[in-house]
Formats: sequence, C-alpha cells, structure tokens
Amino acid sequence: MKTRLTEALGIACPVIQAPMAFAAGGALASVVTDAGGLGMIGGAYGDAAWINQQFDIAAGTRAGCGLITWKLAQQPHLLDQVLARDPAALFLSFGNPAPFAPAVRDAGVPLICQVQTLRDARQALDCGADIVVAQGADAGGHGEARGTFALVPEIADEIARRNSKALLCAAGGITDGRGLAAALMLGADGAVIGTRFWASREALVHPRILARALSATGDDTIRTRVVDVVRGFDWPGRYNGRVLRNPFIRKWHGSEDALKLGTGAEAAQWAAAQDAGDPDVATAFAGEGIGLIRSAPPAGEILASLAADAQRCLAAAASVAGG
Amino acid sequence: MKTRLTEALGIACPVIQAPMAFAAGGALASVVTDAGGLGMIGGAYGDAAWINQQFDIAAGTRAGCGLITWKLAQQPHLLDQVLARDPAALFLSFGNPAPFAPAVRDAGVPLICQVQTLRDARQALDCGADIVVAQGADAGGHGEARGTFALVPEIADEIARRNSKALLCAAGGITDGRGLAAALMLGADGAVIGTRFWASREALVHPRILARALSATGDDTIRTRVVDVVRGFDWPGRYNGRVLRNPFIRKWHGSEDALKLGTGAEAAQWAAAQDAGDPDVATAFAGEGIGLIRSAPPAGEILASLAADAQRCLAAAASVAGG
Repeated sequence: MKTRLTEALGIACPVIQAPMAFAAGGALASVVTDAGGLGMIGGAYGDAAWINQQFDIAAGTRAGCGLITWKLAQQPHLLDQVLARDPAALFLSFGNPAPFAPAVRDAGVPLICQVQTLRDARQALDCGADIVVAQGADAGGHGEARGTFALVPEIADEIARRNSKALLCAAGGITDGRGLAAALMLGADGAVIGTRFWASREALVHPRILARALSATGDDTIRTRVVDVVRGFDWPGRYNGRVLRNPFIRKWHGSEDALKLGTGAEAAQWAAAQDAGDPDVATAFAGEGIGLIRSAPPAGEILASLAADAQRCLAAAASVAGG
Repeated sequence: MKTRLTEALGIACPVIQAPMAFAAGGALASVVTDAGGLGMIGGAYGDAAWINQQFDIAAGTRAGCGLITWKLAQQPHLLDQVLARDPAALFLSFGNPAPFAPAVRDAGVPLICQVQTLRDARQALDCGADIVVAQGADAGGHGEARGTFALVPEIADEIARRNSKALLCAAGGITDGRGLAAALMLGADGAVIGTRFWASREALVHPRILARALSATGDDTIRTRVVDVVRGFDWPGRYNGRVLRNPFIRKWHGSEDALKLGTGAEAAQWAAAQDAGDPDVATAFAGEGIGLIRSAPPAGEILASLAADAQRCLAAAASVAGG
C-alpha cells in the first residue's frame, strides 16, 4: 500500500500501532515494525526503567515511543531519556504538546500528536506536529467524546486549509481492513490501531483478561472514570477511558465519588485482580472494535491480514463508484 | 453508483435522507428522491395531520416516512394511516419494531430499522427488517453511545453470519462524499444522512438557528437530555440527543433534575425561542458532521455533489491499494 504516511515513515503498510500503556512493550512494537507497520512502545506514565527495558527488547528494530503528555509535564526530564533511545517517532497524547515539541524536533525525531478535538488539532499543528492522530471516542483506553467518523475529515480539512504538510492518521474503532480502507476514504493518510494489537500474542495482557475480551461485543464497552479513580490516577477531567464492562465497572460507574471516598479496600482488591487476571474486577482497556475480534494471533499475522483485506476493499471500491 | 441498496430501492445514489423530526417535510423528501436518493418524511412523534400534509406536499414523488417506535407504541393506529399513504419505506427508530413489522410487511412496504447497538440489530433482523441502519453516537438528534466506526462492520458481520438478505446503512457523522465512501468500505450498502440535509434550503429549520449552526465545529456539539426535559418528552433513559451547545444547553446540561423541577418558566422560554429562532436558547439537533458544513444549498445540489465526491474517492482508492 502507498500513502503519504508509508512514504514519510518508510513503511509498507500505513498502520501505526498505538502505544498502549502497560500492554505495548518492545516485543509487540518490534513485531509490528518487522511486519511493515510502525511499532510503538507504550511509555505511558513514564516509568523510565520499564521504557529502557522495552527499548532493549526491541533493539535492532525501529520502534517509536508514546508518552502521556500531562504526565510528562510532571517529569519533563524523561523526554531527553526517551529521545536518547533514538525512537522512530515520539507520540504524545492527552495534554499540550507545545512545551516538548522543540526538543523532539531538535532531536530529528518525528512528532506524532494524538488529539481528540478540532481545537486540539489546531494546537498540534501550531506546534509543528509531523503527524496528527485524530482519535475518536470509539477507541479503547483514554480519550474524549468526539467520534472518529466526523473528526477525521474535519481535521483533514483543517490541515488542508492551513496548507500544512502534516500527515493525518485516524484512530478509534479501526480494527480490520475495512476500517483501514474507510480511514483512508475519510482523508487520513493511515491509521493508529490499538485494540486489534492489544489482542495479539505479543501484547502484555493477562491471558484470562484477554480470553474474556475475545467473547465481548462492542456493546460491552463503556467510557468511564472508574479505573482512574480506583488506582488514584489524576487524569484531567476532560478525559475518561473506554473499558470492557464487568461487575466491578457496573458497581462503580456513576458512583465515582463514593469510590473515591472508600478507595482503600477497593483499590487493593482491584490491584490484586489486575495481577491475578480476574476479569470480573480487573480492567480491559478495549475499544468498540473488540466486537470484531475473536482471537489473538501473532501481531505480524494481524497486520498482514489487515493490510491484505484493506487492499481488497480499496481495489473493489472502483466498481462501486460505477460511472 | 451501484450497491445492493441502489438496486433494492431503485435509486441512483445509495443515500437515504434521515427522517428528521420537524425538519424533514415533504419538500425535502421529494427533492432528495428526485435527485436520486430516497427522501423521508420525519413522522417523528406522530402528528397525523402534519404527516398527511407532508405526504400531500410530496405527492407525485416517492417518499418514505420515519416514526419514533416507542411513541408509535402509544398510538399504534397511526401505522395504518401512514401505510395508507403508500410510503416508499417505513423507517422505525428507538424502540422494539417487532409489534409493527407484520403490518409493514403485509402492506408490501420496505421496513427500515434504525439501531444503536448490536443487540438492537439482532432484534431488527429477528423481526425481518429489510434494511438495518447502524446509527452511531456521532449522529445529530436522538441516539445512543456507540460510535459509527466500529458499529457498522460489527453489524455487517452479524448480517453475514445469519446469511440474511437484509441490507445495511451507516448513519452518524456521514456528511460528504468521503463519509459515504468510508461507509461503503466499512461494509454498508449505503448511508442514512441527516445533518447534511438539515442544513439545506428545503429543510424546515429556522434561518437564525441554521445560520448559527453553519459557523459551528463538531467540537460544539454534545449529547444531552436537556432538550427532552425542557419540552417534557418522555424518552426512554437509554437515549439522548446530540445538539449544538448554546448558553441554554450549557446552563442546564448536568442539572437536568433541577430543570425538571422548575420546568415551567424554562419550558415557556425555550418554546418561545424555538418559534423565534433564538440560537442562544433554541435547539439545533446537529451531528458532529456540522463541522464539515458551511452553507445550506438546495438538497438536490447537496446530493449531487456528495455522490460525485464519493465516486471520486472510490475511484481513487485502487491507486492507494498499490499491488
């Protein structure tokens, strides 16, 4: 496949694997890159030792790294440590990227800014993002309210209006070849894909949590603050996270204030469940696309099949167009 | 353009205009049909006299009719009155269509069921819907939480698993040719388009409300219950409506219980604003696609340009596929 993204990044398939916190380590990132996409280490909240370990695992293969911007702002020195690992790209989400953009640019590393609104996209373009990721609420994990479908073309138009060279990726609900083809039709140059790689052999996901997720439909997901409340993560109020509903989420969604007050016992229970992989309590950060996923093969096979399906969809499109 | 939907309905472009309550009358419906799509009268809450009047306006042109299912259940006799007008299709949304499906089938009228979840889609298929509309939260007006992007392929797969002959339309955020092309890539046979036709010359929208909407971005919309509370519409709890934020919505969103208690004065103010077209108080039911809309031309021009753009996108797709 050939888009502006494949040309800019020197990749065969216009897919960037989302830098999913805790789930996307060096093994996943390197397999995705080897298969023709761009793999990403989920640097997330910024555990420097873990990030270094994952770069070591990915050694010899190009891997990017993602960081949560508002968390990076609390430990800005981390940026230089990550840039020292020569990431294939730096992927910033959830916060103002402007303070960090100059250092990324000076390091010659492509800056990817994931945004959730048109306003965010303008901020990302103002600070010189090389790639803007329009992430819709359909996505798993953290995000905001706007849907993928209209956000992508609206940001595509903003980029065009500015005559900007920035590239655009779509994120949120893109799980198979149909989704990649649709993202390209909407004006994106490629896609950022999370949940589909979360359910892969190389992702760092407890097998019991994964097994439960593989039987879920998209109806079974919900955007909630429960998980951040129980683990005491101080996310800015505009963001919440899409997870699979389970008894723990059902119990506390809508009662976050009560959970916050009595968090001790619940926090311990949740943390233990997370370690043990108890799917009734532990959290699966999955997007609505989970309903299209029934198995967790190696990530390289996932990407190959997704690319082949997208090519088939795109090749068949001309016959629909008629004339 | 040629899809299973154009063949089944005998139309030139796989677009059904959404039967938007209050906004979609006979004038809009007939213009959309004349331009090669399928126009729909927004029968909505079931004002029989208004519906008859709109069918009279559309006389000589095929027009379908949409009804709100939970409201129809309160006045089931309305169904026969609508079927007596020989609608091109009957479009049911927001409730269980099963009680009404036999009469629609007996009348030989295509049954379109709009759904918001996979579970709803199963119910629609169980009762023999000819066309299932997968409506994502990106849409304007009433709906639910799931996004368009992953809902469409998930329901496409459900239809395929059942070996069903039902057709599938995507709805929610589809505003231009890119959106229609993307919907087809996701596995839909066509699209249901609301907001783009809401902003047309023929829609029954106050010009001041329309003017405000034409300067909005998708960021300016929100899903809320405020409007149903203030007008005392007893919508089932699972549904809310996407509208443009304005001072009235900002004041009451999150304070719906207080609004319900003190609704008299606010209700009068809101109703007066609706009549006067005061955009600070009155409601614009617009989807996230409003950010792609800057003018309100005749609906026939909208459809022609949308179809031409979709054809261009689809024709260009093969070159992206590479080989």
